[in-house]
Amino acid sequence: MALIAPSRRIRRTPFSDGVEAAGVKGYTVYNHMLLPTVFHSVTEDYRHLKSQVQIWDVSCERQVELRGPDAARLMQILTPRDLRAMLPGQCFYVPIVDETGGMLNDPVAVKLADDRYWISIADSDLLLWVKGIANGYRLDVLIDEPDVSPLAIQGPLADELAARVFGDAIRDVKFFRYGIFSFAGRDIVIARSGYSKQGGFEIYLPDSDLGMPMWNALMEAGRDLDVRAGCPNIIERIEGGLLSYGNDMTRENTPHECGLGRFCSTETAIGCIGRDALLRVAKEGPVRQVRPLSISGDLPPCDRLWRVMAEGEKVGHVSSAAWSPDFETNVAIGMVRMTHWKPGTRLEVETPDGMRDATVEAKFWN
Amino acid sequence: MALIAPSRRIRRTPFSDGVEAAGVKGYTVYNHMLLPTVFHSVTEDYRHLKSQVQIWDVSCERQVELRGPDAARLMQILTPRDLRAMLPGQCFYVPIVDETGGMLNDPVAVKLADDRYWISIADSDLLLWVKGIANGYRLDVLIDEPDVSPLAIQGPLADELAARVFGDAIRDVKFFRYGIFSFAGRDIVIARSGYSKQGGFEIYLPDSDLGMPMWNALMEAGRDLDVRAGCPNIIERIEGGLLSYGNDMTRENTPHECGLGRFCSTETAIGCIGRDALLRVAKEGPVRQVRPLSISGDLPPCDRLWRVMAEGEKVGHVSSAAWSPDFETNVAIGMVRMTHWKPGTRLEVETPDGMRDATVEAKFWN
Repeated sequence: MALIAPSRRIRRTPFSDGVEAAGVKGYTVYNHMLLPTVFHSVTEDYRHLKSQVQIWDVSCERQVELRGPDAARLMQILTPRDLRAMLPGQCFYVPIVDETGGMLNDPVAVKLADDRYWISIADSDLLLWVKGIANGYRLDVLIDEPDVSPLAIQGPLADELAARVFGDAIRDVKFFRYGIFSFAGRDIVIARSGYSKQGGFEIYLPDSDLGMPMWNALMEAGRDLDVRAGCPNIIERIEGGLLSYGNDMTRENTPHECGLGRFCSTETAIGCIGRDALLRVAKEGPVRQVRPLSISGDLPPCDRLWRVMAEGEKVGHVSSAAWSPDFETNVAIGMVRMTHWKPGTRLEVETPDGMRDATVEAKFWN
Repeated sequence: MALIAPSRRIRRTPFSDGVEAAGVKGYTVYNHMLLPTVFHSVTEDYRHLKSQVQIWDVSCERQVELRGPDAARLMQILTPRDLRAMLPGQCFYVPIVDETGGMLNDPVAVKLADDRYWISIADSDLLLWVKGIANGYRLDVLIDEPDVSPLAIQGPLADELAARVFGDAIRDVKFFRYGIFSFAGRDIVIARSGYSKQGGFEIYLPDSDLGMPMWNALMEAGRDLDVRAGCPNIIERIEGGLLSYGNDMTRENTPHECGLGRFCSTETAIGCIGRDALLRVAKEGPVRQVRPLSISGDLPPCDRLWRVMAEGEKVGHVSSAAWSPDFETNVAIGMVRMTHWKPGTRLEVETPDGMRDATVEAKFWN
């Protein structure tokens, strides 16, 4: 690993001072913003996440705000998921595709009102796509990136910590729903969601100036819970089958290849971009798809695609991999051709350090 | 500085093996790709760049390719620069703005044919904007990111090195023009351009598999010229007044604020997005504009905007700054209000390490 050079272009967040004080050791860049990747060690962070509670600076999940009379229409143009039943208070995971059905982002849409949405984005400048479409379709809608920075509370003790700061009512917020809670005299959207399988919340901090007060309030309130600064953990997210845009899927892939077919109601999502392309995929099914793979032996960091081979022929690739202490194997996410995706299939993975044996698993580990 | 975590999402380049072998010490992330920032030290790299010749892995200048009958029409929709006189063989620096006149990118457009362009982009996913506009306007044009990775030759000895590898004809290529040159039996676009003021070329490598052969051929041919791996240098680019998208300008800024008014022919660039907004700006002029500033005292790295103050009032900000050994001052790029932008004006800059005296300069240093 090399050092990351500081510049305004790699944006700091409202919580960066707290992240630095907590001794962040590694970063990645996500939506032109700093995203921590390790505090103690990836393995120690993993153990702590699975047993206690962590505060994550995920400000890099930037919001694209849609506001105005055509906001709902635009939202449906953007995704093959049928949004007719979506109500304010709900969060929907919405694949966003181009006219060929290729994934542009896999964000969470937050419906604030009938004429107002946030799209909480993965790592691509979806703002530019949404603005381009709105401009080309001449829709009456304002699109902007507001000063809203998500802060996640994740881990088994997340409910306890959140209740101490926001009141017991937060325990009743259902999965992928949000409530409005008060902090420092401000109304704040807090959803039960997050990029781990350990449970928790995402606080949509509405004003950068509230960043460190919020960070400090959570750290204070959770002292006896051993609350720590944390971040999305590569081991835990692979175990849980949480895909990462740019790693496990790109514009090359359809939602169906990514196992996201259940979020595509292509028949009824009238007017959505990519509908023509996806109708056929939805009917025939994809010829390759995301699969959990276990891999044996020592592995280097997965910083590029590794080819997956069967009898000397390429049948897929691995895009994410890490050693899992809990499952005592290398857990991995791959894209595998139909001919070789049956659980139990033995394959080989071509890593920069040599060939490794791999097995297609029936499901993700957690 | 913290470490950068490896992942496929932060893409390697066709030259990464060469960059690593040359001992890269720092990276930034640019268009979801690794961009080296330092090899020996920023100052040593700077001295070498200004006296010898360097090879830069600027693959992160990704290309957006426009191809088809509506390519030229789309290109003019995208920029307020008048492109009517642009011929194949030419490169044009083209501000790209949204409907409010806010900068989305400041790329170089390369005209390959009447129906084919590359847009060599700065750090934003311009592909998504271009695809969104093409989709909304229902244009007959294919848009994609091809396997084209720029490699720059920069420095006073660039002509000599390029001539050794591509032949003497390359010396005749004029500034912001390109020629087609042969390498390994392939036709390769090479332009006289680059992100320094030291002169040189940008090779548009058309196939990743040619990456290391090209890298090695240049390193071999330049051994007696002391050719080295290099990268855009923050000191040299500030001295030369080369702006950086995301650092010195964002969607908040018009081209006129960035001093790019001369690239906007808003009156004649009929049909371009942002025309309505920019017509007024073009007439009145901006109320704030990019200015070179010299700053006294020790400075931390400029990783966020620093407020520029005059008599306790905010009159601008600094977005890039570095110590210049050649000019023996801190050179900086700022955005300053009209009331305080006259050369010689004394200002104060609020850095994380305290207030510093600053002066508005009449022009950039080089």
